[in-house]
Parts: sequence; structure tokens; C-alpha cells
Amino acid sequence: MLGPGDDCAVLALPGLTLATVDHLVEGRHYDESLPIDLVARKAVARSVSDIAAMGGEPSCALATGCLRDGFRNADELFDRMAHWANEFGCPLAGGDIAFSPGPTVLTVTVLGRPHHLRGPVERSTAREGDKVCVTGTLGNSPASGRHAAFEPRLREARELCTALGDNLTSMIDVSDGLGRDAGRVAAMSGVRIEIDSWRIPRASGTRTWQDACSDGEDYELLFTVRGDAELPKDSVAGTPVTVIGRVVRGGGCIARDEDGTAHQICNLGWDHGAGHGGVKA
Amino acid sequence: MLGPGDDCAVLALPGLTLATVDHLVEGRHYDESLPIDLVARKAVARSVSDIAAMGGEPSCALATGCLRDGFRNADELFDRMAHWANEFGCPLAGGDIAFSPGPTVLTVTVLGRPHHLRGPVERSTAREGDKVCVTGTLGNSPASGRHAAFEPRLREARELCTALGDNLTSMIDVSDGLGRDAGRVAAMSGVRIEIDSWRIPRASGTRTWQDACSDGEDYELLFTVRGDAELPKDSVAGTPVTVIGRVVRGGGCIARDEDGTAHQICNLGWDHGAGHGGVKA
Repeated sequence: MLGPGDDCAVLALPGLTLATVDHLVEGRHYDESLPIDLVARKAVARSVSDIAAMGGEPSCALATGCLRDGFRNADELFDRMAHWANEFGCPLAGGDIAFSPGPTVLTVTVLGRPHHLRGPVERSTAREGDKVCVTGTLGNSPASGRHAAFEPRLREARELCTALGDNLTSMIDVSDGLGRDAGRVAAMSGVRIEIDSWRIPRASGTRTWQDACSDGEDYELLFTVRGDAELPKDSVAGTPVTVIGRVVRGGGCIARDEDGTAHQICNLGWDHGAGHGGVKA
Repeated sequence: MLGPGDDCAVLALPGLTLATVDHLVEGRHYDESLPIDLVARKAVARSVSDIAAMGGEPSCALATGCLRDGFRNADELFDRMAHWANEFGCPLAGGDIAFSPGPTVLTVTVLGRPHHLRGPVERSTAREGDKVCVTGTLGNSPASGRHAAFEPRLREARELCTALGDNLTSMIDVSDGLGRDAGRVAAMSGVRIEIDSWRIPRASGTRTWQDACSDGEDYELLFTVRGDAELPKDSVAGTPVTVIGRVVRGGGCIARDEDGTAHQICNLGWDHGAGHGGVKA
């Protein structure tokens, strides 16, 4: 209702609101050779992916840019952030720019609304007996450039919510690697997740299932479905869906080989807390 | 309804929602000698001040910290941000941490609600004939340390909204200096603001009215009141209120001396676009 230019944006957000913020740090999440359009796109898409992971629709966004001194493309960068925010359904309603001697740091807050029937799909609600599924393919995202051009899985999430309703028991986007993110779902749900290593769908150029679990930046949906519910089909919104495992009693996340060997994979992927990048709060 | 730990926070925000984001950059907005508690406080208080400037009440906050590599007090910093967010009425509902070689950059998004009777108080609605008023005193904030310990003017804004209703015609918080911020109100409202230089209330240690207009970081409320409306008293919520000028036909912002000499003051204050710090979007 009131966009950039005033002290605050003024918004009408009826019902429940989803809110998320993510940042994009030059040298951590992209390097300076990445075209400005893709820097802007990735900054927005990362937060939009969090909305998708709740089964929601983006409504509006706020952006900050703390730009490296001497960065001459502030206008272009913000124009492209505004473009991508519109493209993803969350027009920029406000923001702030500053400069610093350090790397450029962009943050994007996105507000959204949950699926009108399913409501917010949390991480903490996977249940024993559920199937564990993933959209698309995993691995090799940083090296292939997919990390900067991925499509947030908004349509896929919407179709899953519509088709499965409460049988869609939990969801997360795979940003730090399948191992670590599945471990988060397991920990928050108080269950154990078992993945069949040979079923993990690998993106082109991904050598091993371990790489598929740890490369990170996939931005695919990892979700659980009640064991006795039918998956509607083997794809949603044109994106393949693969059943990769199951939820069982216990804790942690393991991958099992065809011969039965079990591997702990909770620690495969990006541990931002250890200084690689960041910690999801 | 759902706080940190999931992909998004889930919030119930009935009616209109105010949304703002601001960042705090080490070396720009504070230096490393500032205690962590005050760094955290300032990061939150800057955004809360934007909510006050709309006459609103804070509801919840999201924070990011992009911390300088080797920064060892991440937990303490986020604990103190959570403390101050609670203190100001906007509990932290989510966030993100990353690390970089550059200066620490904190961003705080605050969501809030407008005053239940007055609604959002914008910058663009000052009208010819209005009185121009300011809370508190101006100047010397960076040097005195007030920049890091100021009290966001939430109670003052609430009392002004309640007492004046629609006679409170516009409001902004003075963060970049009275000259520049009054110039913003004038530009957005399509009017000219004339300030009587001798009426500008100077904070202790502020030598000249020019310093009071340009030191910045005051976080006082600059507001306009219909010319024929009574100001309720000479203070609100215990903070002095001073009438410093009037809104007239024309454009720009000038300060007039007692002998009638006029000074353009739109450019007094922090021009973050020129590389000093940031540009309010």
C-alpha cells in the first residue's frame, strides 16, 4: 500500500504471514565474476526458496545492500533485485544501501502467505512411517553455476500442498546439502531419517552419492509424505519427484547402501557455523 | 506463532503491517570499541525508530549478522539482539548468520502495526500552514555516544497520534540530520519547510545550529501539525517538544536567522549516497 521512500512500507497481510531473511555475501555465496543480474537474482531467490519450503507464496520483499566501496553498479544491482522480486511475486517494498570496505553483503527479507488449504509446512512434523522425497536432482550446483540460476520451487510446493494436503507432513529446501538438511528435519521432528543411497537423484556431473549429499546449494524441496498416501505422480509442475527413503523411530540421518551398510550423513554439507558461511537461525 | 528454526517464521499480523529494514556497519555506524550490548541495541533500535516514525508499535523482528572472520562473540551478540528486540516489543522470529573477511554488518527487519486510530503517519502528507516540530534536542549524537544509547521515540509517537489524530500530518525520524530529513519531508510532500534557526533545540555540546542540523543520528521525531491545532503541551511522554518552523508553499528546506537571512539546509547532514554510509530506499 505504501512502498519505498517512507520510514516503513505499509502492507495489508491478512491471515498468517511467513517471514524469512537470508543474506548473500560476496566471496562466500558468489564471486565477483558473477554477472550483476545473477547476483541480484540469487539474493532474492534464496529467500523465495525459504517461502517455497513452507509451501507458501511470496507477497513482498525488503532488501539491503552493504556495497564494497567503489562498487559502481548500485543502481543496476537494485534495479535487477527489484526485477527479480517482481518476477518471483514479491515486489520490493523498501530497503537500505550502505557502503563498506568489505565484501558486498546483500540481505533480502521476504514476506509471504501459506498455502490457503494446507497452511505452513514445517520442518518439525515428519512422522514415523512417512516416505522421504526430493524434487529434481542433487549435487554439483556450485561448480555448474546452477547455484546462481536455480528456480525456487514455488509451483512444485504449491502443487504438493494442493495434491497432498495434510499428507504432506514436513518440508525444507536443500540449501546446505541433503545430509545436513535431512538431519535438521530429523532433529526437529524427533525421528530418524533413512535414505537409500542408490536412490538419491544425482545432477549431471555429480560423481558420488556423497557429493550429492554435500555439495549444497541445490534449493530443491526435501519433503515427507504419509506412508499410506499416494504420491500423485513421479513429477510435480514438470519437476521429477523421487522417493529416497523413509522416516523411522530414532534420531539422526543415515544413508544405507544396497548391501545394508549405514553411513551417518547429518554432517555432510555446509556447516556454516564452522566459518564456511552462516548458521540458519 | 512459529519462531526461529524453520525455513520461515509464521506470524499473525491482522490489519495493516509496517515493515522496515536497516543495517549497521562496523566502522560506519559504530567502531569496534563499542560494547557488544550497545552494538546489538543500536542495530535493533535503528529499525524500531523507523516504526516510531510512522506512529507504530513494533511486533516482531528478523536479524542477520554477517560477522567479521574471527569474531568470537556471535552468541553474545545474538543474545543481546534478542534481548533488545524483546525490550522494544518485537521478539526475534528468525535470522541468519554468515562470516566474511569484511566489517561486521548487521541488519534488522522490524514488522509493526500502525496506531489503531491514527493509522500510518507518512512523510508525504505535510501541508501548507502546518507547524514543524521536533522532539528532544539535536546535535552531537555521534561524539557524545547518544547514537548508540538513544531511546526510540515509541511512546512519544504513540502519544502524538492519540492526542493529535489527523492533525498530526506527517512524521519522520531524524537520522541523517535535521536539514536533510526535513528536506525529504518537503520533497515528498511538495511543500517548503522553513525553520527558525534560533528555535532549533541543541543537545549539550552542540556549538551551532548548523551542527544541530548536520551531526545526524539524533533519532528524534520531526513532525508537522495542522496550523490551527493545539499542541497538547510542551512535552510528550516526558520528552520536550519544540515548534521550530512552518510549512509554506514552494519547495526545499531553509533555515532563517533572526535577521531574516535564509540558508538552504537540504544538504546539511549525511548523504549516504555519496559514500558516507547508505541511501534510504
